Amino acid sequence: MAEEKLPTRAQDFSEWYNQLVLKAQLADYAPVRGCMIVRPYGWALWENIQQALDGRFKATGHQNVAFPLLIPKSFIEKEKHHVEGFSPELAVVTVGGGEVLAEPLILRPTSETIIGHMWSKWIQSYRDLPVLMNQWNSVVRWELRTKLFLRTLEFYWQEGHTAHATKQEAEDETRQMLDAYTDFAMNDAAIPVIPGKKSDAEKFAGADTTYSLEAMMGDCKALQFCTSHFLGQNFAQAFEVKYLDQKGQLQHCWTTSWGLSTRVIGAIIMVHGDDQGLVLPPKLAPYQVVIVPIFKNDEEKASVLGAAKELKTQLAKAQIRVTLDERDGQSPGWKFNDWEMRGVPVRVELGPKDVAKQAAVLARRDRPGREGKISVSLIDVPAAAGKLLGDIQQSMFDKALTFRRSNTHAAADYEEFKKAVETGFAFAGWCGGDDCEEKIKEETRATMRCIPLDQEAVLGPGGAVGSGNCVYCGQAAKERAIFARAY
Amino acid sequence: MAEEKLPTRAQDFSEWYNQLVLKAQLADYAPVRGCMIVRPYGWALWENIQQALDGRFKATGHQNVAFPLLIPKSFIEKEKHHVEGFSPELAVVTVGGGEVLAEPLILRPTSETIIGHMWSKWIQSYRDLPVLMNQWNSVVRWELRTKLFLRTLEFYWQEGHTAHATKQEAEDETRQMLDAYTDFAMNDAAIPVIPGKKSDAEKFAGADTTYSLEAMMGDCKALQFCTSHFLGQNFAQAFEVKYLDQKGQLQHCWTTSWGLSTRVIGAIIMVHGDDQGLVLPPKLAPYQVVIVPIFKNDEEKASVLGAAKELKTQLAKAQIRVTLDERDGQSPGWKFNDWEMRGVPVRVELGPKDVAKQAAVLARRDRPGREGKISVSLIDVPAAAGKLLGDIQQSMFDKALTFRRSNTHAAADYEEFKKAVETGFAFAGWCGGDDCEEKIKEETRATMRCIPLDQEAVLGPGGAVGSGNCVYCGQAAKERAIFARAY
Repeated sequence: MAEEKLPTRAQDFSEWYNQLVLKAQLADYAPVRGCMIVRPYGWALWENIQQALDGRFKATGHQNVAFPLLIPKSFIEKEKHHVEGFSPELAVVTVGGGEVLAEPLILRPTSETIIGHMWSKWIQSYRDLPVLMNQWNSVVRWELRTKLFLRTLEFYWQEGHTAHATKQEAEDETRQMLDAYTDFAMNDAAIPVIPGKKSDAEKFAGADTTYSLEAMMGDCKALQFCTSHFLGQNFAQAFEVKYLDQKGQLQHCWTTSWGLSTRVIGAIIMVHGDDQGLVLPPKLAPYQVVIVPIFKNDEEKASVLGAAKELKTQLAKAQIRVTLDERDGQSPGWKFNDWEMRGVPVRVELGPKDVAKQAAVLARRDRPGREGKISVSLIDVPAAAGKLLGDIQQSMFDKALTFRRSNTHAAADYEEFKKAVETGFAFAGWCGGDDCEEKIKEETRATMRCIPLDQEAVLGPGGAVGSGNCVYCGQAAKERAIFARAY
Repeated sequence: MAEEKLPTRAQDFSEWYNQLVLKAQLADYAPVRGCMIVRPYGWALWENIQQALDGRFKATGHQNVAFPLLIPKSFIEKEKHHVEGFSPELAVVTVGGGEVLAEPLILRPTSETIIGHMWSKWIQSYRDLPVLMNQWNSVVRWELRTKLFLRTLEFYWQEGHTAHATKQEAEDETRQMLDAYTDFAMNDAAIPVIPGKKSDAEKFAGADTTYSLEAMMGDCKALQFCTSHFLGQNFAQAFEVKYLDQKGQLQHCWTTSWGLSTRVIGAIIMVHGDDQGLVLPPKLAPYQVVIVPIFKNDEEKASVLGAAKELKTQLAKAQIRVTLDERDGQSPGWKFNDWEMRGVPVRVELGPKDVAKQAAVLARRDRPGREGKISVSLIDVPAAAGKLLGDIQQSMFDKALTFRRSNTHAAADYEEFKKAVETGFAFAGWCGGDDCEEKIKEETRATMRCIPLDQEAVLGPGGAVGSGNCVYCGQAAKERAIFARAY
């Protein structure tokens, strides 16, 4: 699979991405337009992402559930913004068991409606609250322009749904889950995300407030990493989700929802990848270490493979995810390229000379060439690899943060703004008006990504934060926001 | 939720089951006919089942993947037995994004067809084999008569799919996975299953051979616990899944598939449950231990809750899944009933007198009343609970095995046979003919469950194994098989 070279990112970023996803065997195109198959290497990455998040959800009291795929079409019509947002994207089942259905069923595009319907039965009193649920599943949205992981007809995600007695509790939950995602993005995915608030035009169909994490990809475009929605009482009213409070009064619940999907895999590829292929963050990489044995004859093979297997056992004992590449008929050089393309953080090279001196060479994926190589005695490899994985994780984050900051520009006026969105993120004053947002989008193809919650952190220490006026209309700015072209 | 008593199993087994699933909050009916919602307690049980199986799959070299939900309708028509078996059960998407689709898409009833299609692209040479894949997902089959967990329109399962170079390898894989399921059933679910071969009439649509595990429920009916199929070259031929062998010849692959679904939860309920509710096997129970604090006033409450929290910490440290019932406004007696209904294997009762003497009472769910209670000093509770959980696991298995054997009867002639299937399993000679199988089904409502692989194990040591003639036609028996009414 590694025979043909990838195009470089500078040549064609989009084609680099498409080919890399296929060559690294993360995913493939399904026979149905816009659908994807997630292959073992891609799914192993997703399983590590799931595990990292699921632990955070459970630690904050959430429980997993499974609501069905099929939703009566009438449900989607009960919340007016929701129906506007999702109607154009629905897939509809009209035939079941050979019969035309009396009421068509839709494939869930998201589950607020069916969950609201069930909550109205399950929730009676304040004693039943809060309800803190999450589910890992797939949803279907009939997208026209698709791209593997980033936008597909069916995609995999988790959707959290919670119901609370008070507005404050629901708002706190919305922010708590945004924080959980931020912690995951920064510490596990090594992606320096910007947590912020969406504009009314960009918020979820049915939400009062949508928060998101925004990340900068390797081509300087923005990608929405995940979202967390404060839904107010909108769905509670549409589905009559009520509870008796401590005074015996019937009240509507306050609800939230929050989700993160397999598009995060796209973000990991586009933030960290280089012209040789994937560079996976150690905390999420399916294999953290690959051992490539080097030998020329059977005698060398026996000695090297013996040492390699022992080393694999020792690394596994140290809780390091390790694989040994024993494939016959491929040269070590070919294997180096193949595992570089697949982004394994640390490669261990083990040849007869290494075995003779009871040592091995460790090579960092994030620093190609001699600079990233160290020789370590065999007995020290597990500890050295463990330390190296920590260093790589931190170094990948630092590099991505430097890149984002150096491609984010405070824009004092519209000319600066237009230049900024040509090459990265613009951080600019905005009057808060839908009109200015719409005009900016028409004229520059840049959308309002978010109003950062921590304005200082966007540009880093000493960064100027732009003018106090709307970059488009010149009126007093209500907010300072990130604008960018986006995936 | 525990206010109203369940009907007893003797009164109405089916209604006992339906009410128990709802009351224990394992699942609920969805708004779409025949669909279910798996609630947190039910999903936590399923997650434990998933973990137990997934470890076994990965240990035998299988990797998880995700193939899409939507399959072109034409795919299902490529394998002639497959289309006959599944056509009547399909759900069909005819509209997407507001447009009528040129080719209708079906919701996967199982994924052999789309996987075969993709394998034909991915598999080129013997070096690519074997391919060992599994996926955890949901599938849709338009069933007419549904029952929570046992038969629903959408259900959750795993489906394993493998491709091999030789017939022998594929046959070995089919049996290996049957063994993995057997190990899980016996050791984790505490269910004494009978591994066996299906008749041609009962095998999977498209298989050469289907193996299954059959279990006896509390009403003596049979339930198919899971299946493992040797698919021969049927799907490989229909989808042109070929590889170049070591001599450079193009060969069709040999394939297998194997699956286990959420109906296993139904089996756990019906094998182990009693008139008080669920009895969950310790290895799979969401909570293995529940601590119920007992107090009458605030002073007692402070002292008891303090000790209870410390005990919870100690149990969690010992890797025991534990919960502390701190609910206000419910009596200890009410809580005892509630947790009995939910089947928690061990209850720890902790009152002021217990705290005074630094002890607690441990009560076994599987042995109600005084007989199952022991008093243990607080410091010894984690070790005692750990041992008790092991004892309960074994004792549940033993009890279920004794029950199954005592309700399985070798039938020498058709009169004995008819009596046997009225009250349990009949183990009888069978000529191997479709006609006899069909007549038996018509006349007794008993179906051929399986030809047990280990014939001796069915009745246990010393059990007679019936005559050497077909119980229906009297011709020489080719096989000795289990017949029973089934879920």
